[in-house]
Amino acid sequence: MKLCMIGLRGHHGYVLDGLKLLPEIKVTGIGSGCEDDISPLKAKCEALGHNPKTFTDYRQMLDDEKPDIVCVDGPFELHAEMCVEALHRNINVFCEKPISLTITDLERVRKAFNSTSTVHLASMVGLRYAPAFMTAWKEVKNGAVGKVKMITTQKSYKLGKRSEFFKKRSTYGGTIPWVGSHSLDWIYWFSGSKFKSVYASHDSSDNFDLGDLEITSLYQAVMENGVLASGNIDYLRPASAPAHGDDRVRVAGTEGVIEVMGGKVNLMNASGNREIECKPDRQIFADFVHHVQGKSISLVDAEQTFDLTEACLLARESADSGKVMFFKK
Amino acid sequence: MKLCMIGLRGHHGYVLDGLKLLPEIKVTGIGSGCEDDISPLKAKCEALGHNPKTFTDYRQMLDDEKPDIVCVDGPFELHAEMCVEALHRNINVFCEKPISLTITDLERVRKAFNSTSTVHLASMVGLRYAPAFMTAWKEVKNGAVGKVKMITTQKSYKLGKRSEFFKKRSTYGGTIPWVGSHSLDWIYWFSGSKFKSVYASHDSSDNFDLGDLEITSLYQAVMENGVLASGNIDYLRPASAPAHGDDRVRVAGTEGVIEVMGGKVNLMNASGNREIECKPDRQIFADFVHHVQGKSISLVDAEQTFDLTEACLLARESADSGKVMFFKK
Repeated sequence: MKLCMIGLRGHHGYVLDGLKLLPEIKVTGIGSGCEDDISPLKAKCEALGHNPKTFTDYRQMLDDEKPDIVCVDGPFELHAEMCVEALHRNINVFCEKPISLTITDLERVRKAFNSTSTVHLASMVGLRYAPAFMTAWKEVKNGAVGKVKMITTQKSYKLGKRSEFFKKRSTYGGTIPWVGSHSLDWIYWFSGSKFKSVYASHDSSDNFDLGDLEITSLYQAVMENGVLASGNIDYLRPASAPAHGDDRVRVAGTEGVIEVMGGKVNLMNASGNREIECKPDRQIFADFVHHVQGKSISLVDAEQTFDLTEACLLARESADSGKVMFFKK
Repeated sequence: MKLCMIGLRGHHGYVLDGLKLLPEIKVTGIGSGCEDDISPLKAKCEALGHNPKTFTDYRQMLDDEKPDIVCVDGPFELHAEMCVEALHRNINVFCEKPISLTITDLERVRKAFNSTSTVHLASMVGLRYAPAFMTAWKEVKNGAVGKVKMITTQKSYKLGKRSEFFKKRSTYGGTIPWVGSHSLDWIYWFSGSKFKSVYASHDSSDNFDLGDLEITSLYQAVMENGVLASGNIDYLRPASAPAHGDDRVRVAGTEGVIEVMGGKVNLMNASGNREIECKPDRQIFADFVHHVQGKSISLVDAEQTFDLTEACLLARESADSGKVMFFKK
């Protein structure tokens, strides 16, 4: 199978990691889709034994290489356009999340996807695949906490040094879509339900001269199945902290509470209070490819990708407007 | 000084604990203010060397005993009336939180308080005085996390066995006012700011046949000073869990993050990542009495008590109505 890669702004590393497990995939073309320097990606591909051609025009690449799969990791504001171009060529799309920074663009991708038939599209919800979250999710699905009632989540990052594009809403999209997307995906995935409503706040003051970037955000969602869910998101994790992120999920149900914190899983229910051993399951890009190959069903599909993107954008709109946003049935 | 005690539904234990430190206080009268059996309170007072008279009519008790201080811990729906009766007699009031279950009753208490001059009124925000929260609060006030940007809190309780009055909104008030009041008080206290707006959700389904009782709740507040704050509240803590409650506060600021969890305090800032030793400060009822005696300023006053009660009631109204509620300036 042939793979082309557009851009290196986000989590294209998932693809590079997956390639080690997928000898049947050949990277035939790469391009940044913008003025970003593509040479670091080229070096990484070569280190893995691939020798892709470099393209300045990604459309040309798709036309020339006719890849089976494209990895979209270009400028955030071009995700949607790149998805549409790939879908129009019937190419399977593995795209950085969120796949769009506006509802209009999201609808363009949805329309393009609906005009295809067998194409697979998924966004890079990599934290589903992190062993602690995967382990906790399996426990919840197996009924370890009974009926799920409330899900609370946290994303806290070190700010570090941020590229220029983080400073503008038009090129960054916002902290809710960028960081919060992981958290919104957790509540969507753990609840097993679509969104009913969302309310959010965010704040770009005291953001260390990063322009529009929101340094904090809170959101609260009601899911269609009645689960209450929330997330707190910040870039305030001190440089002295032990890891880049402090990712957390807590799921409270009628028969127990399970919690992911510090990469560990703790479960309290009628059987006691104990740590659960975290087991890796599958690699995110391998999961995508195996789905395309018909070998297994991916953890994430196009419908989920659209739902998550919509949730990000409506939560952001709520934070901008101060209004509670409702999802269309 | 003379003390009378009305009721034993909540945290009158704070008073009993405080009496051990306050030999100058004599309990002269007790009454339940309703059909509740007062004998357990009588026994506890006697064990501490007091020999109070028992009254069936608490107004009669206030008239006959003319106490300096009254502890109000009767039926939740009568807190406000009992406060008003005490305030009309110029008696200092130490009242279970929230001091009212309706905005109308809250305004009655406020009016009665405003017609007095030197009376002290405070509600039982006991978790301010718990060593871990007190220690964290002092660190925040001393600038350990820089400018406070976001405060997230948790209250999770074991459901246990609940009295009949928990089953009705009219006698319980709701999980936001009862349990959430602690959490709303933390964000008010740690932010050092009044409330600007609040949005909340709650859910009484799957509540183990407890009528109106909401088993879960989430809220999100914006403070006047721009701090974003939230709370997750539930009664889903399993019986197997190590303690009754899992109380948490996390404060993220421009220079660090401090967190209270499991009775411990952790601080991350430029000086590193470490546990902070928790030191007790003062006892809540002793703090109240010392304020009345003019010896020191209490951590909580009437204005704060009114603000907190209003926050509880507007958050509950938001959860009932689905609307964002705004506070009057």
